[in-house]
Amino acid sequence: MTDATSTQIQLAARPIGWPTPADFQTAHVTYDAPKPGEVRVRNTFVSVDPYMRGRMNDVRSYTPPFALGETITGGAVGRVVASASDDLPVGTVVLHQHGWSDLVQADASTFRAIPEIPGVPLSLNLHILGMTGLTAYVGLTAIAHLKPGDTVFVSGAAGAVGTAVGQIAKLLGAGRVIGSAGTPEKVALLTEKYGYDAAFDYKSGDVRTLLAEAAPEGIDVFFDNVGGDHLQAALDVFNDGGRAALCGAISSYNTTERPAGPDNMSTMITRGLTMQGFTLAGFLHLVPEFQEKMTAWFAAGSIAYDETIVDGIDHAVDAFLSMMRGANTGKMLVRI
Amino acid sequence: MTDATSTQIQLAARPIGWPTPADFQTAHVTYDAPKPGEVRVRNTFVSVDPYMRGRMNDVRSYTPPFALGETITGGAVGRVVASASDDLPVGTVVLHQHGWSDLVQADASTFRAIPEIPGVPLSLNLHILGMTGLTAYVGLTAIAHLKPGDTVFVSGAAGAVGTAVGQIAKLLGAGRVIGSAGTPEKVALLTEKYGYDAAFDYKSGDVRTLLAEAAPEGIDVFFDNVGGDHLQAALDVFNDGGRAALCGAISSYNTTERPAGPDNMSTMITRGLTMQGFTLAGFLHLVPEFQEKMTAWFAAGSIAYDETIVDGIDHAVDAFLSMMRGANTGKMLVRI
Repeated sequence: MTDATSTQIQLAARPIGWPTPADFQTAHVTYDAPKPGEVRVRNTFVSVDPYMRGRMNDVRSYTPPFALGETITGGAVGRVVASASDDLPVGTVVLHQHGWSDLVQADASTFRAIPEIPGVPLSLNLHILGMTGLTAYVGLTAIAHLKPGDTVFVSGAAGAVGTAVGQIAKLLGAGRVIGSAGTPEKVALLTEKYGYDAAFDYKSGDVRTLLAEAAPEGIDVFFDNVGGDHLQAALDVFNDGGRAALCGAISSYNTTERPAGPDNMSTMITRGLTMQGFTLAGFLHLVPEFQEKMTAWFAAGSIAYDETIVDGIDHAVDAFLSMMRGANTGKMLVRI
Repeated sequence: MTDATSTQIQLAARPIGWPTPADFQTAHVTYDAPKPGEVRVRNTFVSVDPYMRGRMNDVRSYTPPFALGETITGGAVGRVVASASDDLPVGTVVLHQHGWSDLVQADASTFRAIPEIPGVPLSLNLHILGMTGLTAYVGLTAIAHLKPGDTVFVSGAAGAVGTAVGQIAKLLGAGRVIGSAGTPEKVALLTEKYGYDAAFDYKSGDVRTLLAEAAPEGIDVFFDNVGGDHLQAALDVFNDGGRAALCGAISSYNTTERPAGPDNMSTMITRGLTMQGFTLAGFLHLVPEFQEKMTAWFAAGSIAYDETIVDGIDHAVDAFLSMMRGANTGKMLVRI
């Protein structure tokens, strides 16, 4: 491979249930010299996220599905290695959405320069300082309308979004914060590192029972990354006027049968509950507010994070599937 | 029976599934002369409503359950026949919540005088001009945030709330309004009398298919009185940013098994939907706004209604059960 050749991972077929390697293909692209206005970027970190599973399906949604035979798009950070744009000279660190490749060349307007700050790894722009942190912030504020003193339950709390949610909830004045995770090690991390007041291993028993024990006085806010049994359990213990922010439903992403919905939907009426699903598409106006707050929290040392790293763009699919199976703690990243 | 003896229907046991006559008992109460501050009221109409089924269960809710061995409370209108209160002299027409009886005596502060207006039957205070109309108005405005041009779907549209919802939606600027009902006669009434643009008989086929056919361009607002298959069908056809106001779930009120929830909850996320359950408890501040608008609409001849009437307090339970089975069109009332 020369400095002009890119390895890219493309969607080859729409997965049925769990994706397999046959649903993906590797393409090699050799770029000509950048045309006027273009830059060439060598990526350092590429993001794999749960929402990407949804975009592999051909369903109507706010965001269109991934196209077959094209490179999978998504967040990445890298450095300009060739430039025909005065805006982004060689050496500039950039954030972009070109996705699963080691090298990408495109118009400079599709990249955004980001500052290099000593002590702040560039990868954080792909999670706690970026879309993941924003997702947590939007869900707690614009969707769940978190109030000081609220008891908050977070499903899948040891993932990239979940670790951010617990911390941001506390910083915004939440009372008790409860999380679920899929291993005893993650459960320990939630209370020891991420400020959760209580946590349970959802594989250790019935989620309804486990949550009822962890939330003896009910919950006011539910931030859901899992769906299924977690959503049903949350409906059981909501206090009057409770709010659910539905961010993800990883429990159903790779199922081929339609999942049974909660058997207790009538509590929506009797307790006056609100449930709202969201993607970031409608909430990008909150970016400045989020960045201001998160920058201050981070500078004050109030934000912890974990990264689970897989090396090499050739292992992007492995990283994605491992993340869907819960092998990550915190943010799953592909390091180039 | 003397003029001082009241026949009252009480809850004798908490029903399991469909209520039976054995779950109720009749009590006769003979009142002394009203004490200072008290009035005696002979009812003319007593309301039976779907929400009452929920209050027969001993479950945590905004409103407490009915007490065993006590008269079932709920809306009624009547006329003062004996009075020891200057506020409510004999002959005053009053609205109250003392419920299922032909005669009731209590402190004057528990009754509210209502005007007698020529051409306006007093019974309307129990539905279109009262709580039923308010329920429709609150659900469309404060819960579903109806916008001009929205396509609205109403389940159980030929009931007391549903007939009000369709008309109020149109008066507030809705575009297409679609309703479901349980007989061909009710379906015809929806389009011919109540201004629905489309309607279907939910017993004539699969609700998912029927709604998809009736809403080829999707829906923006769902006003749900039924739950179950109706809620699931609505989730299938919601446009991005759709809002569901969950008012009732009559399909599950008399089931003994926990009902399966919608199998398509993930559309909440992909389409950014909001779902909110409500009772009137938190929205009584909207009464003046509702009364002002509804009075004007009614005076302009813009409001149609139906009443299904059962005679005699001894038939209150029959009326209630018939209503739960869908035998009513519009408001079910017991006439004394």
